Amino acid sequence: MRMYDLIEKKKQNKALSKEEIQWFIEHYINGDIPDYQVSAFMMAIYFNGMTDEETSHLTLSMAESGEMLSLEGIEGIIVDKHSTGGVGDKTTLVVAPMVASLGVPVAKMSGRGLGHTGGTIDKLESIPGFQTSIPIEQFIDNVNSIKIAIAGQTANLAPADKKLYALRDVTATVNQRSLIASSIMSKKIASGADAIVLDVKVGTGAFMKNEPEAVELAEIMVSIGKKLGRDTTAIISDMNQPLGFAVGNNLEVIEAINTLNGNGPKDLLEVSLELASHMVYHAKKASSIEEAKKMLQETIDNGSALKKFMEFVKDQGGDESYVSDTTKFQGASFKEAVNAKSSGYIASIEAEQIGYSALVLGGGRETKESVIDLSVGVIIEKKIGDYVAKGEPLAIIHGNDSTKIANAKALIQDAYVISETEVEPPQIIKKVIT
Amino acid sequence: MRMYDLIEKKKQNKALSKEEIQWFIEHYINGDIPDYQVSAFMMAIYFNGMTDEETSHLTLSMAESGEMLSLEGIEGIIVDKHSTGGVGDKTTLVVAPMVASLGVPVAKMSGRGLGHTGGTIDKLESIPGFQTSIPIEQFIDNVNSIKIAIAGQTANLAPADKKLYALRDVTATVNQRSLIASSIMSKKIASGADAIVLDVKVGTGAFMKNEPEAVELAEIMVSIGKKLGRDTTAIISDMNQPLGFAVGNNLEVIEAINTLNGNGPKDLLEVSLELASHMVYHAKKASSIEEAKKMLQETIDNGSALKKFMEFVKDQGGDESYVSDTTKFQGASFKEAVNAKSSGYIASIEAEQIGYSALVLGGGRETKESVIDLSVGVIIEKKIGDYVAKGEPLAIIHGNDSTKIANAKALIQDAYVISETEVEPPQIIKKVIT
Repeated sequence: MRMYDLIEKKKQNKALSKEEIQWFIEHYINGDIPDYQVSAFMMAIYFNGMTDEETSHLTLSMAESGEMLSLEGIEGIIVDKHSTGGVGDKTTLVVAPMVASLGVPVAKMSGRGLGHTGGTIDKLESIPGFQTSIPIEQFIDNVNSIKIAIAGQTANLAPADKKLYALRDVTATVNQRSLIASSIMSKKIASGADAIVLDVKVGTGAFMKNEPEAVELAEIMVSIGKKLGRDTTAIISDMNQPLGFAVGNNLEVIEAINTLNGNGPKDLLEVSLELASHMVYHAKKASSIEEAKKMLQETIDNGSALKKFMEFVKDQGGDESYVSDTTKFQGASFKEAVNAKSSGYIASIEAEQIGYSALVLGGGRETKESVIDLSVGVIIEKKIGDYVAKGEPLAIIHGNDSTKIANAKALIQDAYVISETEVEPPQIIKKVIT
Repeated sequence: MRMYDLIEKKKQNKALSKEEIQWFIEHYINGDIPDYQVSAFMMAIYFNGMTDEETSHLTLSMAESGEMLSLEGIEGIIVDKHSTGGVGDKTTLVVAPMVASLGVPVAKMSGRGLGHTGGTIDKLESIPGFQTSIPIEQFIDNVNSIKIAIAGQTANLAPADKKLYALRDVTATVNQRSLIASSIMSKKIASGADAIVLDVKVGTGAFMKNEPEAVELAEIMVSIGKKLGRDTTAIISDMNQPLGFAVGNNLEVIEAINTLNGNGPKDLLEVSLELASHMVYHAKKASSIEEAKKMLQETIDNGSALKKFMEFVKDQGGDESYVSDTTKFQGASFKEAVNAKSSGYIASIEAEQIGYSALVLGGGRETKESVIDLSVGVIIEKKIGDYVAKGEPLAIIHGNDSTKIANAKALIQDAYVISETEVEPPQIIKKVIT
């Protein structure tokens, strides 16, 4: 086989065979195929796409390019949850204890990643003592004993995806749905889940800006998951404004705890219940989504989800008193309001800009080496459809540096559009794809 | 400027500016831009194309990436001739002395190249003593005194094209018309011609397999030439069978001499007269193409073209007695006929396969280091439309090695398709684009 022929074939819009795709991944990861051939290949895929068959083959080849985690030691059906990423997305912190409290095993490996705020792992580290690097044996033991463990990803999962993504990132070949889908799914397949629930975000704060694109991506991922023998469901959820009110590391942990307490934002609860219900259903702990939702709501009403969260924090070395008393979290030095310059209804919020303001404040990573400030962030006061009077706060900035606060303030002010006429708030769950 | 943005722009089918294209070529040749970005860029160009404006900018930037030959020391209008390449194409050897004998300066720098047979330079070297590497001063002196000099290309012409072509060659991005056009034209522009006549070959033995593609390529090149201030004409000529009868180095030189003697193949003469007439017209030595053709026919009829060829050979150190007595050329050791297996009319000849048989015999270069056997080749006996009786020769192989001859024989046999019904021979000049 020659890489040249594979490029030519894709250029001519012909489908590649399983063997060709396997050969490509194997020899690319070995260093036998130069980047300049692969980038031309990626661009040909950008223009001609890949069939669902090809995308599945690519996904599996990338998954098998590194370690394939074996979670056989864990009892029950392991359902993984993945979000394509958005601003203020703390659903894992709500979903995981809810489903675990119903006996569904949660065995989650999370990356730190780059972004507006840290990843789940960073957020959990805002609880003093919390250990995210635990040996695989303890990880499995924890899941078996209390049904929940969340750890940093130490295994070498899907290295081919890593190498390919780095190349796509500098050759303008990231935004192709089959490539995005296989990138996400290869890591999920490698991390050993039996079933997968995907949260595909759509809107100004998401990678996918419009619904048809998001649906298309979700459909491919569901198709790949099924082809590879994993029950997969995707929900399309709104990301035209931050999810909930909090954007920032420990601010989001506090909001997640409040939600488990029954005092969380409505949209965050709704998305969490939707995602969690599919997990419970795939894990065969409920016979319908409706039944699962009822069971999950009860875990909040009767306090079992919060109790599970405390158990989880304690088991991984964290100080669980922070969960019962969230005022113990280290706050930022300054709080500054961003006030409305006119009265009216919030028409839109450039969510990505809100996220960027949290990054500017020091809450996210620009490079892998960045140190995150866990205390900074933004609390949104007004969301789409809300009325605001001139001078009233749109958001409260939590910051530790006055220059950074000034920069964040300008970004947030600029992110809001205020209308004189009433505005309908967006529907949070747009679609479920199974 | 960032290469990433240029890739993204072309991916989105937007036209690049002159500055962007100049920046790209300058930084690519400097080594600032990695191959993996350029190959993705080339693939985006393959899919979205380039406007004529962009193609002109690319051509000029590549021309200016190296030496720009100054032929100011030469009197008169210098008209260059370029062929996109075909099997048995020895037109330069016929055209150059014809036009020079009419006072049109021929100052031709030729590469050796890879191919079925050697290039013009290799062919001329089959005349004992002929020098193809002459200093630029002598080159210019020769053109001024006898109107003709043909030398090997020693200058570093259009190195950006060279680098880009090498990358395109291994990333399946060769066959894009703007890229082909700019590659050809950049070298013509750099080599200092005032006007350009192009012979775009079309058919089984050419790079362009069908007429619309060939016309499109020709039109782009004519447009580029004009935009860059060079009178440019292109002819589209048939390459569905070898041009003339001879394929091989000294076999082709002998055929060219026969043609200058008035005893050449009809198709070769017709293409040569067509190309030469446009050169004479662009050089303002005739007021119409028809007039130019008449003048050129006369250079053959009155022997002045042949005399010019002898003068040229002598001036570059060659033994001109070979021109007056072509039997002096070293022949191959063996001649073997390829006979028809059935009677009928020649319906088609896979010209590329005939060319490949000459390469197999040792007449061409597979790599830059290959040594060419100047005596081997093929003499075509039957061309499209000719009647052949079973057992009559289709072609005569001239070879020095029995294994190679056997391989060539199978290729040639296979290249011929014989039909029971009469077949119309192809029209040699298909179109003229000005």
